[in-house]
Amino acid sequence: MKKAIVVTIGDELLQGFTVDSNSSWISSYLRKLNINVEKKITVGDNAKQITSLISEIFEEKIDILIMTGGLGPTHDDITKNVLKNYFNCDYLIDNEYLENLKKKYLKHNVSIPDNLESQATYLSNSSPIENLHGTAIGFKINFNNKLIFVLPGVPIEMKQMLKDSINLEDYKKENIFYTLKTSGIYESSLYNILKKTIKENNAFKIAFLPKYSGVDIRISMKENVSNQKFNKFKSQISNMIKKYIYSDSDEKLEEVVAKKLIKKNLSLSVAESCTGGLISKKITDLAGSSNFFLGGIVAYSNNMKINILNVNEETINKYGAVSEETAIEMAEGIMHINNSDIAIATTGISGPGGGSKEKPVGLVYVSAIYQNKKIVKKYKLGSNRDINREITSSIAFNIIRLLLKNKI
Amino acid sequence: MKKAIVVTIGDELLQGFTVDSNSSWISSYLRKLNINVEKKITVGDNAKQITSLISEIFEEKIDILIMTGGLGPTHDDITKNVLKNYFNCDYLIDNEYLENLKKKYLKHNVSIPDNLESQATYLSNSSPIENLHGTAIGFKINFNNKLIFVLPGVPIEMKQMLKDSINLEDYKKENIFYTLKTSGIYESSLYNILKKTIKENNAFKIAFLPKYSGVDIRISMKENVSNQKFNKFKSQISNMIKKYIYSDSDEKLEEVVAKKLIKKNLSLSVAESCTGGLISKKITDLAGSSNFFLGGIVAYSNNMKINILNVNEETINKYGAVSEETAIEMAEGIMHINNSDIAIATTGISGPGGGSKEKPVGLVYVSAIYQNKKIVKKYKLGSNRDINREITSSIAFNIIRLLLKNKI
Repeated sequence: MKKAIVVTIGDELLQGFTVDSNSSWISSYLRKLNINVEKKITVGDNAKQITSLISEIFEEKIDILIMTGGLGPTHDDITKNVLKNYFNCDYLIDNEYLENLKKKYLKHNVSIPDNLESQATYLSNSSPIENLHGTAIGFKINFNNKLIFVLPGVPIEMKQMLKDSINLEDYKKENIFYTLKTSGIYESSLYNILKKTIKENNAFKIAFLPKYSGVDIRISMKENVSNQKFNKFKSQISNMIKKYIYSDSDEKLEEVVAKKLIKKNLSLSVAESCTGGLISKKITDLAGSSNFFLGGIVAYSNNMKINILNVNEETINKYGAVSEETAIEMAEGIMHINNSDIAIATTGISGPGGGSKEKPVGLVYVSAIYQNKKIVKKYKLGSNRDINREITSSIAFNIIRLLLKNKI
Repeated sequence: MKKAIVVTIGDELLQGFTVDSNSSWISSYLRKLNINVEKKITVGDNAKQITSLISEIFEEKIDILIMTGGLGPTHDDITKNVLKNYFNCDYLIDNEYLENLKKKYLKHNVSIPDNLESQATYLSNSSPIENLHGTAIGFKINFNNKLIFVLPGVPIEMKQMLKDSINLEDYKKENIFYTLKTSGIYESSLYNILKKTIKENNAFKIAFLPKYSGVDIRISMKENVSNQKFNKFKSQISNMIKKYIYSDSDEKLEEVVAKKLIKKNLSLSVAESCTGGLISKKITDLAGSSNFFLGGIVAYSNNMKINILNVNEETINKYGAVSEETAIEMAEGIMHINNSDIAIATTGISGPGGGSKEKPVGLVYVSAIYQNKKIVKKYKLGSNRDINREITSSIAFNIIRLLLKNKI
């Protein structure tokens, strides 16, 4: 397996103003090409630090080095200059690229900045990489049996440029990981079910990765075993926890549900109180969601619950807005409005405020209707608002998944 | 200024299964304590690699080292063992902590796992740090004039533990950064307005950080100047771009809008088509949003636009669901339903599919109503679904901001 190091450059990454999502994407992309990222390093826009880092890194025994960030048009972008000094080479301008950049500015009626040339400048020991989504050109250097990619830090630009410039045929595609994604069961309970099998099969490495949507189980090989053995072990594990597995690929829970709905030609609508739009947002994050999603109501006020979702005012007065009864009537209401095949509703107290002794922060009800089934479930979650909302939306998707499988 | 290094440990971080949000939070937190993170390094759950990394890092000239990850209950969590070997010390069990853990399991009716003791184990050369949100205990080591914090990788646990165990009084709070957050203007246009002033004041470092919500401008000192000078420069910059600045602290655009609404005692409701719940979600992410947010309709289908939002069927037939006219009627509809002071509506083609020659992917309308003002704006965004939705929601919040200031 080939080895790589990812270096990200930028003060904003060290100062905590920006979350680095690039290096995780790069790792994931390279992994599919059978390239293993061994280390990730982040340094600031500081010439001394970058210089010292590259002198070290260029000597490491790796096949690929990916550097992102510090290629922008402003004065704090210095990556290129540091590399030029290190390699003692010249700057070249890609004139065709520069002309295209100018055309882009004209097309959007934005005046051409003074320093646009810098965005088309690459090193004389490199080959340029075109940026289709932004301005900064990238480049690729072949040095000491290493391939060095120098790319901008903007995620959409970096992704396109890496994809376009890495030669896929040089790297063998081979799936050496296998992930089982589960929902609706605790990590410790999963471990209890599987631990005997794990201990008996020490050629494999099993990692448990708890997320708000559930626990991912990742199986990889510690030593080289035959594909047959690997597959046998995979099936063995899968069969022991079948009910909880929603995917064995990279899909999200909501993606799995969406695919099922499209396949079965079923429509969905949503009434949200405590999740406040999060479920609708996650559904409509998916391209093509208009094929099954009819819409939703974010009924944050009682007025909307009563006047739009047609929840009985007495129900709210008697049982409260956060109750089994209200949850069911919300689901009924949104189903009636959209005449959808499936309806789902949430009501709860996300926190941090709004709790009482009887109805504490973290109390959540999720209701769903499909065919002749009307379901309502009660949960006692924790005190963190964001986490409560995330978990509630995952519960809702998992309930739909189980309903479609007739397992709830 | 004190120096720190952040080390995150975990195969899942290198393989791209998980985005590392911890190190950015740590950087941001330490920055407020006047501690500068100089480098961030990520390695896998590999004893050899961790050992070689810590031998290097423990020799670096830093004040603080923060290590997160690899403290969980499963067999792939090895951080503690590597450190024990390095320091040649013993394991100690925090018995009181262990008893509390057991009580937590009993309270949630979950059976106690076999290896729970490992979660209460710390090193004999360290002092333990209590984990209030999870199981793995953390610890703090004083070594060679360095403070080493060893914490779990789960964000909510790590945050609480670092906050509780770092001695705030040891670090002077001093604001050496200043951020102006802008919305509604391009990076290149901002740069054109400010570049002369930037060049004339080279004691300051200015960084431009483009985000979907707008461009953040960060001002810091390159050399030591008086507070008076720093403040003068800050005001000078602020005054040149006043209209675009929505915050000079760490607030999000929607937070600023929310505070304004609460202060003015105004209510808001939302009708979303292309943003599909994202605006409602962002509003309800904020604790206390029920004080001004009445609710929203995610009118993904024409049926919901017509029957719930009361958009005229003829309007949709004549102008299309993505049109100025529909956007306005959506805003009118949601305002009528909730009798809110402000209403906002979005309709557009987020992509990747659904575009036509006349109405291409990226075409978006945002409409808003407040007092006697009815606004509708047209935008031509790009081809990326996620980005289009993010930008559209930011546009909506910025329109509300400007409406409240009477600047639109």
